[in-house]
This record gives sequence, structure tokens and C-alpha cells, in this order.
Amino acid sequence: MAVNLRAPLAAELHPVAGLRLGVTEAAIRKANRRDLAVLLIEAGASVAAVFTRNRFFAAPIQVCREHLGAGAEIRALVINTGNANAGTGTDGVARARSCCAALAQQLGLSAQQVLPFSTGVIMEPLPVERIEAGLAAAIADAREDNWLAAAHAIMTTDTVPKAFSAQAPIGAAMVCVTGISKGAGMIRPNMATMLGFMATDACVAQPVLQQLARELADASFNRVTVDGDTSTNDSFVLIATNKAAHLRIDSLDSADGQALKALTLGVAKSLAQAIVRDGEGATKFITITVAGGRNAGECHRVACAIAHSPLVKTAFFASDPNLGRILAAVGYAGIDDLEQETIELFLDDVHVATRGGRNPAYSEADGQRVMLQSEIAVRVELGRGSATDTVWTCDLSHDYVSINADYRS
Amino acid sequence: MAVNLRAPLAAELHPVAGLRLGVTEAAIRKANRRDLAVLLIEAGASVAAVFTRNRFFAAPIQVCREHLGAGAEIRALVINTGNANAGTGTDGVARARSCCAALAQQLGLSAQQVLPFSTGVIMEPLPVERIEAGLAAAIADAREDNWLAAAHAIMTTDTVPKAFSAQAPIGAAMVCVTGISKGAGMIRPNMATMLGFMATDACVAQPVLQQLARELADASFNRVTVDGDTSTNDSFVLIATNKAAHLRIDSLDSADGQALKALTLGVAKSLAQAIVRDGEGATKFITITVAGGRNAGECHRVACAIAHSPLVKTAFFASDPNLGRILAAVGYAGIDDLEQETIELFLDDVHVATRGGRNPAYSEADGQRVMLQSEIAVRVELGRGSATDTVWTCDLSHDYVSINADYRS
Repeated sequence: MAVNLRAPLAAELHPVAGLRLGVTEAAIRKANRRDLAVLLIEAGASVAAVFTRNRFFAAPIQVCREHLGAGAEIRALVINTGNANAGTGTDGVARARSCCAALAQQLGLSAQQVLPFSTGVIMEPLPVERIEAGLAAAIADAREDNWLAAAHAIMTTDTVPKAFSAQAPIGAAMVCVTGISKGAGMIRPNMATMLGFMATDACVAQPVLQQLARELADASFNRVTVDGDTSTNDSFVLIATNKAAHLRIDSLDSADGQALKALTLGVAKSLAQAIVRDGEGATKFITITVAGGRNAGECHRVACAIAHSPLVKTAFFASDPNLGRILAAVGYAGIDDLEQETIELFLDDVHVATRGGRNPAYSEADGQRVMLQSEIAVRVELGRGSATDTVWTCDLSHDYVSINADYRS
Repeated sequence: MAVNLRAPLAAELHPVAGLRLGVTEAAIRKANRRDLAVLLIEAGASVAAVFTRNRFFAAPIQVCREHLGAGAEIRALVINTGNANAGTGTDGVARARSCCAALAQQLGLSAQQVLPFSTGVIMEPLPVERIEAGLAAAIADAREDNWLAAAHAIMTTDTVPKAFSAQAPIGAAMVCVTGISKGAGMIRPNMATMLGFMATDACVAQPVLQQLARELADASFNRVTVDGDTSTNDSFVLIATNKAAHLRIDSLDSADGQALKALTLGVAKSLAQAIVRDGEGATKFITITVAGGRNAGECHRVACAIAHSPLVKTAFFASDPNLGRILAAVGYAGIDDLEQETIELFLDDVHVATRGGRNPAYSEADGQRVMLQSEIAVRVELGRGSATDTVWTCDLSHDYVSINADYRS
């Protein structure tokens, strides 16, 4: 089902020194599936995070913010699938705190050193007692080479586990980065991850790591959209275990900082694009670039209008070059002084529309040829400036409706 | 297919003195269907109109604005289905002008006295010669009691013709209003009609009629949304033939003005709601009311976020009370300082969520009971003010995807 996305092999994922992952079956929503994961971080690491901008943020997000704000060293993450603990009010916050306290107790930490994450159905009470009962097994399972199992354990409607890894030299050391993500629906910028966890053994000062996390999110997870629904639980965590033998990176502008950004951005983009490739019901992967805007913000607005249009998305599903729908979406993106006469539209190399109208040289056969591909690039030129922006999305199919009409059964 | 919407009977539609309608088959896109309509207005009428805010407005919209701005008395409308003449650049504008000129010539008018309207596929050249060839037959067909035929002739993916009529006393006269609309997809506020035409025999000063048209649109067509796609062609025209024997209405605030507004609003709401009831693939009609906001604007934003959420819409399709999705949509509606703790959610009479979390008294069986209905009211209370707003929408079904993946075939 997923578009040009295969499951990773465990051997492709570099272990990150100083970080172990463990999973277990806790029967949170369904029996016989591994639905609980813990990430155990050695002392001395840096942890940064970016969260959803949805005002109905889930209970675990609130607890994460509290614990990160308290300043204690973060030493463990507890992650469950099957239940999002969102729309659960103050009771939900108490349950998220209980999970942290239970894991902290078993590890000899304070509760504030644990971050909780949940994904799954909204507005159902989190079964804390089952999570607590599973923690010992998850801890016992913890190994450095267990990334693939963790990628499996955080899936909801995902059809493929998502994990990527890379390495590159920084200073005298060979540094690695490995990450996992999940999320196939309820995906829209800020944040689009639902859940994403990346770790590197690089040495990075905490404020630099937080800046890097924000920049990575803006260039990856915040550029993917499946259905325009911004989740209540989106979280992206970036961990630096500081184990690699190079000088600590104190600025992203340094050569080492740039090298680390390039290394981590590659993995972050792969993780983000994997979410779209595995988008609910997706049959096509679509890259939408809007150029020639006055600023990146208006380019982003236009790109999102195209990416969220059900009419555009169903046309991609049908491989139907009904491309006027893209122009219509450009028109309602909310740019009040947009002029049609400067708009150009390309589908891959095919020049579809010029000066706001059909390109005389365009033939439907050319449009059809591109629409039949599984990977399609849409390019809109606004002709009013030099800014540009890109988002990645998928088509809207019968299976999207089936999956979401049937999610809880 | 349509939700509690039946085709009108010709006898239910009051003829409006001073206005005749004619239709014919012009083979604009398909053979053997009536796809061309003319509305012929006697001298002495007032005409007001409201158009899409989509910046990629279609060529006929540009010509309508020019002709209305020129100030000549509008005496005829020419309307085709099958081709929207949108995304067609300057050539499309020339074609729209040609249609007006051709009808004007046959009626002994100037081209500026004719307004053109088109709906259908985008970015295809309008077959002007076939429209011109059909005009004589459409004119010959024109009768005052031909509203139902016109309702048929403007349909695209509509499954039911949409026409409503009402009458009420104003002063010494019995005044009537009759209208037709079309549009089942690409429906979103401003405008949501795609096409709507209403006429009354009431006597109304031109500026008052324009004010009335705007107020009617805001309270009806701008409150319906099927898929969030704002069309390039949306137009709403309100005609007063000034034939009724009452004193001319010079203010909407007068008793007669209020009576006229109430009379026309009823028909406008029915026409607008009919578009949602016949929404592409719709199986449910959903009224979303957001109360307790600081202003109507933020209530409208929240209502639209709920109405446009594919996750909410597929849950309605499945009759699945996965109602946390509604809270999630409230959260990403863009109200930066929204607090969860004051949010209440009702489904008809069922109190689903309180203080941002699940209502302890809520049972899934109660939610399920309402979700199974074909008409559902969602009510969100924001708890931060006294403003309110309402929109009407439908669910998202397999058939929506089928219809739009296959629209042009």
C-alpha cells in the first residue's frame, strides 16, 4: 500500500551509544501486539523537543512541557500506542503523570526525568494500570539495537514501520543518527509527526540541540500533510547522548554544526516523508513547490491549499489531469491581491498553465502521463517575488475513507 | 442519495411576474441534456449579485462585474453547465463576452445588459459556437412557469434539482419569491452556491436589493460547506421585478423591508441547505453551532474547522461516535489563546464533553444513537464570550471519492 516505502531492516539502523529501547505487549487497546515502548537514556545526554500547536494538546504534551520546563535531566521516555490520552481533561493529566512516576520508580529516577507520549484513540481514559504492569518487561527488553522493535511498537494505522539511520564524520569521530516515526492520518503541519524520536551520539550543547530540533521540524515534519488534521499529540524529540569523541558543538553555524544539521536533516526528512508515503490510503507521493511568492509564508499557504484540497487529492487518486482544480485552490489560498495573469503551473516537466490560463502547448496526454506516476511534482509560480516553499502530501482514495470510517473497530 | 431532499414539483414554484426562463440542449459537454438556460427580465427590474472571493474567479465572473459596474439595466442572464470557463485566461473572458453579445443581439439589447454564468469543468475552452447556436431555442422556450426546467438545466453532479418558492403579504400585495441553485462539490463559504438565482416580484430600490443580497448570502450560502473547496464560479443573483403593487421598499429596517428579508431568507436557506443535502456522496446533514465565542468570526473559524475535518466527516459517515476528533478540530482552528478547560461539546441533546474532557455521564450508546441519525446537530460552547455562528455540512463517504475521481469521465 505505502508509496515506494519499504520496511527497514534492523541491521540498517545504527545503535546510538547511550540509548536503549525496550518494548512489550501491554494490551492497551488490543491483545497480542507490542504497544508499549521505553527509551532509556544514560546520564549526560541532552534532550530537545517540539510539540503540536493544537490548543487541544493531549495530556502527555502538558506533562512533557512541565517536565522539560522543570530542568531536571531527562533520562527516559515512555510511549504507548492505542490510546492518545487526549480530550481527557485533568484526569488524563493525572494518568500521564502516573505513567512517569511508575517508570521513574523502577529506574530510580524522579518523575520529572521521564517524558510521556501517547497515540491512538482520543477521549478514552488511558489504562494506566496496564501500562504500569508492562513497564518491567519493557525495561528488561531494552537494548541499543532495538530501534526496529520500537518503530513497530508506536504504529497506529501505519502499514510500515518507519525508521532511518545515517552516519557521517564530525571532527575526529564517526557520528550516527537514528530515528523512528509514526503517523498516517491526522497529519498536518505543526506538527505533522504525530510521534517522532531521533537520537544521535553527537556532542551538542542543550540550547543548540533545541534550535536544531526546531529547524529540523520546520524543514521536515512541518512540511508533510495527509488530511489537514493537526493532531493533538504531535511530538518530535531529539536526543544527543554526547558519547561521540569530538568537540562539543556550541553553534549550528560552525562547520561541525552544519555537518550535524545535514546529517540529522536527511533522517528527519526521510522520517517525515515516510509518513506521507504511508498516508492513510495513499497511492501517490506528491511534492508541491510554490515559487515566486513575496514571502515563504504565502508560498506555504498556497502549497497547503493545494495539498488539502479534496478535489485535487481525488484527481490525483484517479490519475485524472483535471488540473484546473489546482488553479482553483491557488485562488482560494487567501492571498487577497493575487493576480491570475502571472500564474504558471507545471506538473513535473509539463507546462500546464501559463498566465493563469491553459498553456496552448499543453496536451492532456502529457498531463495524463505524469498523473499516472506514483511520484508527482507540482510546481506553481506566483510571479510576484522570489520566495519559495515546499510541502509533501498524498492523494485521497477510497481507502482513506474506509480506514477512518472504521478506525476504532 | 440526497439527505431528506426531494425534487420540487413545478406547481410548487410561484411564477415571478416579469421574469421568464427558457432552456435548451446545446451539447456543451454531453449530448441529450438541457445544459443552457436564459433568464429574461422585463424592463424596470432591479438586479443585485454576490460573487466568489476566489482570486482565480472564472471569466464570466469578471464579465458580470464589468457589466454590473457599467450601470446599464440588466435584462438577461445566460447560464451554461458542463464547462466553467475558469482558468481560461483572456481567451475565456472573450468567450464569455461573445455569449453576452450573441444573446443581446437576439433580444435587441446591448451586451452590457446581459450577465453570463458558467459551471462545470475548469480549464477547458468554452464552446461558444454551440452556446450561440442554442440561444434561439432557449429564448423560444421562455415562460414564467419554467423554473423547474431551469433548475434542471444548471445541474452538474447534483442528483436533485433545487428550487424553492414562498409568498407572503407585503403592504397591500401578496409577494412571491422563487429561486434555484446548483452545486454539490467544490462548496465552501464564500460563496458556497456555485450558482444561485432568486427572483421576487417585490418593489425594491436597487441599493437595498444589493444590501439584501449580501445579507442573504452571509446567512445562507456562506454557511454551507461540502469539501472546503471555494469555487471559482460561485455566484448568487437576486432579481426584483418590481411588479408587486406595494410601496417601494427603501430600507431593510422598515416593516416591509423586514418582511421581505424574512420571506427571501427562508428560500435562500432552503436553497443553500439543499446544496449540502445533495453534497457529493452525502449521507448525513450536519448543523454545527459554535457558541460562547468572543466574536462571530472565531465561532465561524471553529465551526469551519470541524466541518472541513476529513476525520470528523468520515466518522459521521461511519456513524462512529469518535467524538474526540471534534475536540481536536476545535484545537487547531487557530484560536491561539483557547483554553481546553471551558469547552463543552454536545451532540443533539447528548452532553459528550465537559471542561475539555469526557463528560462522566456520557455513554457511548448515547453518542451512537445520535450518530445513526440522518440529521445531526453538533454544538460546541467555547465559554469565553457570547457570540455564536452556525454552518451546515455533510459527511465524507466513499461516494465522494468516486464522484470526484471520476468527474470528467
